[in-house]
Amino acid sequence: MLLNCDLGESFGAWKMGLDEQVMPHIDMANVACGFHAGDPDVLAKTLTLVKNHQVILGAHPSYPDRQGFGRRSMSLSAQELTHHLHYQIAAIDGMAQVQHTSLHYVKPHGALYNDMMKSEAVMTTVLDAIACYPKKLKLMILASAKQDIHQKLAEQHGVTLIFEAFADRLYRDDGLLTPRSEPLAVHDKAALLAQVEQLRKYSRVTTASGKSLTLRADTLCVHGDNAASIALIQEIKSMINL
Amino acid sequence: MLLNCDLGESFGAWKMGLDEQVMPHIDMANVACGFHAGDPDVLAKTLTLVKNHQVILGAHPSYPDRQGFGRRSMSLSAQELTHHLHYQIAAIDGMAQVQHTSLHYVKPHGALYNDMMKSEAVMTTVLDAIACYPKKLKLMILASAKQDIHQKLAEQHGVTLIFEAFADRLYRDDGLLTPRSEPLAVHDKAALLAQVEQLRKYSRVTTASGKSLTLRADTLCVHGDNAASIALIQEIKSMINL
Amino acid sequence: MLLNCDLGESFGAWKMGLDEQVMPHIDMANVACGFHAGDPDVLAKTLTLVKNHQVILGAHPSYPDRQGFGRRSMSLSAQELTHHLHYQIAAIDGMAQVQHTSLHYVKPHGALYNDMMKSEAVMTTVLDAIACYPKKLKLMILASAKQDIHQKLAEQHGVTLIFEAFADRLYRDDGLLTPRSEPLAVHDKAALLAQVEQLRKYSRVTTASGKSLTLRADTLCVHGDNAASIALIQEIKSMINL
Amino acid sequence: MLLNCDLGESFGAWKMGLDEQVMPHIDMANVACGFHAGDPDVLAKTLTLVKNHQVILGAHPSYPDRQGFGRRSMSLSAQELTHHLHYQIAAIDGMAQVQHTSLHYVKPHGALYNDMMKSEAVMTTVLDAIACYPKKLKLMILASAKQDIHQKLAEQHGVTLIFEAFADRLYRDDGLLTPRSEPLAVHDKAALLAQVEQLRKYSRVTTASGKSLTLRADTLCVHGDNAASIALIQEIKSMINL
Repeated sequence: MLLNCDLGESFGAWKMGLDEQVMPHIDMANVACGFHAGDPDVLAKTLTLVKNHQVILGAHPSYPDRQGFGRRSMSLSAQELTHHLHYQIAAIDGMAQVQHTSLHYVKPHGALYNDMMKSEAVMTTVLDAIACYPKKLKLMILASAKQDIHQKLAEQHGVTLIFEAFADRLYRDDGLLTPRSEPLAVHDKAALLAQVEQLRKYSRVTTASGKSLTLRADTLCVHGDNAASIALIQEIKSMINL
Repeated sequence: MLLNCDLGESFGAWKMGLDEQVMPHIDMANVACGFHAGDPDVLAKTLTLVKNHQVILGAHPSYPDRQGFGRRSMSLSAQELTHHLHYQIAAIDGMAQVQHTSLHYVKPHGALYNDMMKSEAVMTTVLDAIACYPKKLKLMILASAKQDIHQKLAEQHGVTLIFEAFADRLYRDDGLLTPRSEPLAVHDKAALLAQVEQLRKYSRVTTASGKSLTLRADTLCVHGDNAASIALIQEIKSMINL
Repeated sequence: MLLNCDLGESFGAWKMGLDEQVMPHIDMANVACGFHAGDPDVLAKTLTLVKNHQVILGAHPSYPDRQGFGRRSMSLSAQELTHHLHYQIAAIDGMAQVQHTSLHYVKPHGALYNDMMKSEAVMTTVLDAIACYPKKLKLMILASAKQDIHQKLAEQHGVTLIFEAFADRLYRDDGLLTPRSEPLAVHDKAALLAQVEQLRKYSRVTTASGKSLTLRADTLCVHGDNAASIALIQEIKSMINL
Repeated sequence: MLLNCDLGESFGAWKMGLDEQVMPHIDMANVACGFHAGDPDVLAKTLTLVKNHQVILGAHPSYPDRQGFGRRSMSLSAQELTHHLHYQIAAIDGMAQVQHTSLHYVKPHGALYNDMMKSEAVMTTVLDAIACYPKKLKLMILASAKQDIHQKLAEQHGVTLIFEAFADRLYRDDGLLTPRSEPLAVHDKAALLAQVEQLRKYSRVTTASGKSLTLRADTLCVHGDNAASIALIQEIKSMINL
């Protein structure tokens, strides 16, 4: 399993995330495109880091909501969503080429990610948008109980999926994440490491109800917010490389 | 001489310019990229028009100032300006490719255009930014008294220039435009048509001081704000096609 | 019945609405506060018009979504919504005082208006926000089948309601408006004038299903987008002043 | 000498400054109004802190440039600047009243502050804007070699000035600050404390050229970015309370 992390989330004078420190330890970077976080300067700096550390580059597009950090659902039409995806993907794609690196995949951010996992209509719009982009890009989504359905849907659009799992989040029976607002939604360190072990060895997680759920994950999502989380990334990395 | 026009300047619910009506009559479209005007939806619709009318596509990037429509000078560092140019160019480049059309040139907008014409440092930053973009793009600038100096500078960067002239604006002796805030800065129809004729036949304009100034223009900038300006474009077009 | 109209909806270089021409014919102005439309300059100019025409001033606050013109629902927490309302109300209130005019009421805009009419939780948040604002302000809402319930709720918060009706929109049986996306949602002129007459004489509208619904409206919402709508405002005005 | 500090500079998901920790140690808070930093939620939380710690409240308005944090000069007309000031002052004024606290002064931010100190035209516009605001507000500016001239200008507008000095910045002979881009522009701790002592005892600073310059400062500007700066504030506070 590869490690992926959301990066390039600073904006103007505001710094977020320890990008320089997390970059050496991860395999895939989901880079903000300027709609919920990032700006042309942040994006250029992040792409330099991506290139220097030979990390696989992903676009992390969002609803257009900087103040809400893309965490508030917005009702865009399919056409509007398509244009918003294309604009953000194109911006990062071209800027990556300026730095002689290239874009490999797309992972929708925040509320858009959640809406895509809940709604087949949104998932279809995202797949369509990626399919008609002039460069072949993969789509990163959550490995859930609907993994096979999503796989088939993506194949119909000619899009390759990358399935991700979360180390630190409690799963529901449908394979979606328990919302952060609920108690126990975010694992402590022991539970987190146990979940990594379970995913690595058995491709399974234990859900909130105690059920064992099969999830085939290509990649684990990790966070690089502070020193503790960087240390944790290294610990997870050594576990999955055993 | 080809005709170029600023297009795609609507934003969200706000409409600006008669893009559908002007598109059949022009040769080159300077399309807003979302920083002073335009948004992903407007951009997509404009690119469809560009494609349908087989107009040559240019990016029209700006300082990041939507409320000021890119008309207020902003002190960006060379690096910041480069990133802002790359982001906007990349966005329109990728979105054009989605629609199977392609980007040919860049024309900076508003205050950025004026700053570039006044400052060799800004001009150099713009040329550098275009030179290191992964696709070969031309740069459209004002044909002025410094035309030869600009030509040499651009050659040093390996960038081809497109020189434009204005039909409706009074020129100063240095070949820059008299600011709109001054009286007589904008020609009435008779003066405008006389200036077109002078440019077409003699590659010259008569400046505010009465001097005759040589300007080799590849293209004339026209406007598509209202019905009268559309009619005027057609009149100019028939003159330059004589 | 008084006439109210949404005004101050220009933004930067983009003009929307014939504010100068509509102002003489209306009684109440719902003025955009800068979150979906308007900006400090537009707001100042609109307030001058409001003052000169002695129109009753209302704030027209919105979700923070300029590109979507406040027409996309956004999931703000009650606290966030309260702060967004207070910020916008405070901005227009203070700017009105600069021009020696004063704010009388609040009419939420677009998606926020619709959310408020559909959800008692949102209505309660809006009422709370208005109740704890340091100046006594009224709230303008849609006169619907729930008019009495809304009246009681408002009284509990010590807020006076202003009920509005729409001349040009087809009503549903619950007194909400048929969405614009549906056929027949917007009346032609004859149906519009008939609805005004019905509201004026009988405080009733005929709904989409043919039902006759009682609506006590203090004010009619009119539009000032173009010359035809200005003429229509004058026609409506002469009808209701009969 | 009172201590003032820039606060409320977080935005959306981005945190800036240790507002909770700095608030107990300062006397005056310059609170961002949403144009370069802050948003309705941040503003509300900051005002609660201001109220709880009984700090004197100031508005910290800016040019409209969030990505540039208000640090890039923008050419607004006098009228535009006036409207931008009124909008921001009104927003914070009304939101302060919601929390039963009140606004006392205005300190322009960043590039606007610098432009005001360099240009009498900008200073006059700021004074005019404050003078015609419906509530009596003071204006905080830099104590410089032009202190007496500024005092007279302010008196002509009926505005009371608050003069501030900087503990950590090297002064030029004209009493303006050496730009941060230059070496030695920001004092180390020893030089900083020496400058505080000099200001406190003799109302003087030693400029870059070695000249001794008289500056009558009502308040010292301090920073609350990190733990070290909080400790420094406490040290400065005990010095000036000797």
